[in-house]
Amino acid sequence: MPETSNDNWFYEYFTPDAKFGIKIRRHLVDTKSEFQKIDFYDSYEYGRFFTLDGYIMLTQRDEFIYHEMIAHVPMAVRPDAKKALIIGGGDGGTARELLRYSTIQHIDMVEIDRMVVNLCRQFMPFTACSLDDPRLNIHYTDGVAFVAQSQQKYDLILVDSTDPIGVGEGLFGMEFYQNCKNLLAESGILVNQHESPYYEDDARQMMRAHAKLDAVFGIAAVYQFHMPTYASGHWLFGFASDSVHPTTDIKEDQWNSLGIATKYYNTALHKGCFALPNYVQELLKNTGMQQ
Amino acid sequence: MPETSNDNWFYEYFTPDAKFGIKIRRHLVDTKSEFQKIDFYDSYEYGRFFTLDGYIMLTQRDEFIYHEMIAHVPMAVRPDAKKALIIGGGDGGTARELLRYSTIQHIDMVEIDRMVVNLCRQFMPFTACSLDDPRLNIHYTDGVAFVAQSQQKYDLILVDSTDPIGVGEGLFGMEFYQNCKNLLAESGILVNQHESPYYEDDARQMMRAHAKLDAVFGIAAVYQFHMPTYASGHWLFGFASDSVHPTTDIKEDQWNSLGIATKYYNTALHKGCFALPNYVQELLKNTGMQQ
Repeated sequence: MPETSNDNWFYEYFTPDAKFGIKIRRHLVDTKSEFQKIDFYDSYEYGRFFTLDGYIMLTQRDEFIYHEMIAHVPMAVRPDAKKALIIGGGDGGTARELLRYSTIQHIDMVEIDRMVVNLCRQFMPFTACSLDDPRLNIHYTDGVAFVAQSQQKYDLILVDSTDPIGVGEGLFGMEFYQNCKNLLAESGILVNQHESPYYEDDARQMMRAHAKLDAVFGIAAVYQFHMPTYASGHWLFGFASDSVHPTTDIKEDQWNSLGIATKYYNTALHKGCFALPNYVQELLKNTGMQQ
Repeated sequence: MPETSNDNWFYEYFTPDAKFGIKIRRHLVDTKSEFQKIDFYDSYEYGRFFTLDGYIMLTQRDEFIYHEMIAHVPMAVRPDAKKALIIGGGDGGTARELLRYSTIQHIDMVEIDRMVVNLCRQFMPFTACSLDDPRLNIHYTDGVAFVAQSQQKYDLILVDSTDPIGVGEGLFGMEFYQNCKNLLAESGILVNQHESPYYEDDARQMMRAHAKLDAVFGIAAVYQFHMPTYASGHWLFGFASDSVHPTTDIKEDQWNSLGIATKYYNTALHKGCFALPNYVQELLKNTGMQQ
């Protein structure tokens, strides 16, 4: 829950007994859409940031980490990808990274909340900068319904979702993943926001997501990255496919020959980030009973 | 600086404009040694934790990450190591991990502050549990002076220091590292607490430390780990040697045959954790002018 005290600190509670505080320069937007509470802030340490239902979605300072890791990991395995589906991602950061590839011809981005996109266009030009690229098609509708009805085939599906509560809930369901799989072309890859292993509630969501990806896909791997403004700083994406493996099928030389300048991602890190701590591996192994 | 407000939250300021809050069950110790301010707490989310000059040193919940990563990375490269020097490490966690190896015959631990060790014996039995092992010799003296005077040879030197302010300052100096190098036996390894790349002050210390290790040792590598209760959650150790390389010289099969159960460390993660993000590599490359 958000809490802005008199001296202008925003707090995100990681748990009821641990919180992260950001000193606010200005509370830019305090509103509510049809779907969720939306707040935009300007801060001293992290620049602009916004929250949905009180949870930090991105900050200007570290969004590059999340967006590079959701996009370039699958692209280094499938640098020939032409068609992609983004579920969520209303800030535009994930689309921005994918659109850096000249080989990407078409992206469908399915964002339920038009207000998030409009506010990001206004206040987050650093992520929204590619939203008018002619290769990008924004659909303001429910991602769960979209994947149930679509007849398209995609090389990549990137699930850039909020946490699995409220509006994001359906994006962590078995049917959703099954429908995504049906939309993948040959050698297709799904990457999803996979929560965090550290705090108990996040770890439970991580296990729920993994149990389903593991049931639906032949390959269901998990990779980690350092995200300073997310709870614990230890965050994960899932990498799921029926035929391509994230580290043995990486096209390292081909990706490096593209000359895509990145601040976080590189192909050595790509191979390293799938090596998870033992305690995380244990949690992921014990997902059998999670629903 | 520490700040415990009326409703019993401890705050560590990562920067003047970002802070981390832990709800306190009990403030166990509030004292000052000859060297530093010392506070021990019991908390709801992290169990017991203690701070020096207001900075979190360890929490019961995540200390295993730090202590496994400082000890097992060099031990997997030198599983034959017999003699080790620990600089700092008064809580006992680093010694605890090293003493799990039956091959380790002798450890000198040089801790300047006897009060830290005594309080950890009382309140942190989970890290202090091996402090009475007959292979461990505790020297209550200044680590900088110790390495300048010692005539011993060590297979490993682990610099488990506080931040390079106040009492820890000398542990980040060129002379200190040069003296450490002189104490290393053939194929010896130095590992040091290497700060964090994210917040500006931490990154400056990281660059200072790296500039010196790089000047003194033939091999000066850096590895990362996820440490939820340290600023940004993105923390580093340095790995320095004149002859052994952290990833190409790892004795993977030998280490795995030892059957040492770990919660964070494993040899795949060992090889992965030296792959650093581009922005961190850039900072480390640009250390030439740092003093």
